[in-house]
Amino acid sequence: MRLAELSRRSGVSTATIKYYLREGLLPPGRQINATTAEYDEEHLRRLRLVRAMIQVGQVPVAKVREVLGHVDDDSLGRSMRLGASLWALPQVPEPDEEDEYVQAAHQEVAALLDRLGWRNAKLLAAISPAYRSLVVAVAAFRRLGYDWGVEQLAPYAELMHRTAVLDLDNMETHPSEAERIEFAVLGAILNEPLLQALHRLAQEEETTRRYGFA
Amino acid sequence: MRLAELSRRSGVSTATIKYYLREGLLPPGRQINATTAEYDEEHLRRLRLVRAMIQVGQVPVAKVREVLGHVDDDSLGRSMRLGASLWALPQVPEPDEEDEYVQAAHQEVAALLDRLGWRNAKLLAAISPAYRSLVVAVAAFRRLGYDWGVEQLAPYAELMHRTAVLDLDNMETHPSEAERIEFAVLGAILNEPLLQALHRLAQEEETTRRYGFA
Repeated sequence: MRLAELSRRSGVSTATIKYYLREGLLPPGRQINATTAEYDEEHLRRLRLVRAMIQVGQVPVAKVREVLGHVDDDSLGRSMRLGASLWALPQVPEPDEEDEYVQAAHQEVAALLDRLGWRNAKLLAAISPAYRSLVVAVAAFRRLGYDWGVEQLAPYAELMHRTAVLDLDNMETHPSEAERIEFAVLGAILNEPLLQALHRLAQEEETTRRYGFA
Repeated sequence: MRLAELSRRSGVSTATIKYYLREGLLPPGRQINATTAEYDEEHLRRLRLVRAMIQVGQVPVAKVREVLGHVDDDSLGRSMRLGASLWALPQVPEPDEEDEYVQAAHQEVAALLDRLGWRNAKLLAAISPAYRSLVVAVAAFRRLGYDWGVEQLAPYAELMHRTAVLDLDNMETHPSEAERIEFAVLGAILNEPLLQALHRLAQEEETTRRYGFA
């Protein structure tokens, strides 16, 4: 397809597509003559991914380039490709390791992973942004006087594990490895607002079931 | 306790506490003499809530005042008090009702609630920000070519419902109605980052279980 059709099918303006091409976020089309290039379905898919990262995820262009570098690196195994792609996305602030609540939260999270039997997550603790985000979140609870321990955290973790199983089952329905990794990156950006909205709606449903509408 | 002790126990500076008092986010202490006021455990609890909203949730001061107005309005039933408090928190952008993907998402979400039997959520659809957030999230998926239907959404919704059941069970462990409502508001601010971190960590655990570390 030509640029105009790529624009129409993706809903992205030709000026923006040209910008993405210049920035190397989209591979060049097949040059037909001096002024015309031809694009295919893979361009369309990649364009959607770039747009989701920039417009929905508000990921800066340099980060998008970094994420795409990992998505396209088929020298890596699937876990590494997924990890590198997702870890390049913006993360929450790092924990302040001097903070007493952060130190207590580290112990709590370690105990939680032991209880859950999440051995891999424990092995990744030193390098995983998700682990550090969890420490920050648990420390925030503690700082406000809610000393949530393993008893309170474990049931939530089990439900989130079942959510992650669904995520990967959905990912595996995509035929090619490139599409799977792209789906995972999109999922990281789109799935969290979806889960948040479902969770809030479920809270309203459950609240009104228990206490009525008044 | 005096102002200095309130500051020490809350970790909030005396200058900030005085600012919250001036802005009406914290009820005045019991005046002992012209220069000294006495504060109690309820001040401490309220201070934690205000700080969580402002520092963790980045809720503007005027919004905090609005939320607290609902938290304290014991003329309302529990569902209304919870709803009014949570709905006053910042929400995602409103759906663009002219957008074709938004229109398709409305139908999808309505079908989802039918399938789930979430009758109350359906009754609240016209006024609930969570409902609109869900429409926005589903429309974002559709716009990127993932036409997720009820089949894909329902298992996520079931897991989020179980999460909401845990939320309310935890809320009900708090003795007074004021504490319950405060806990729900805190939960809305602190629980979402916690769930997100648990979800990402669970994805890493499940990914490495399925595909190894390479």
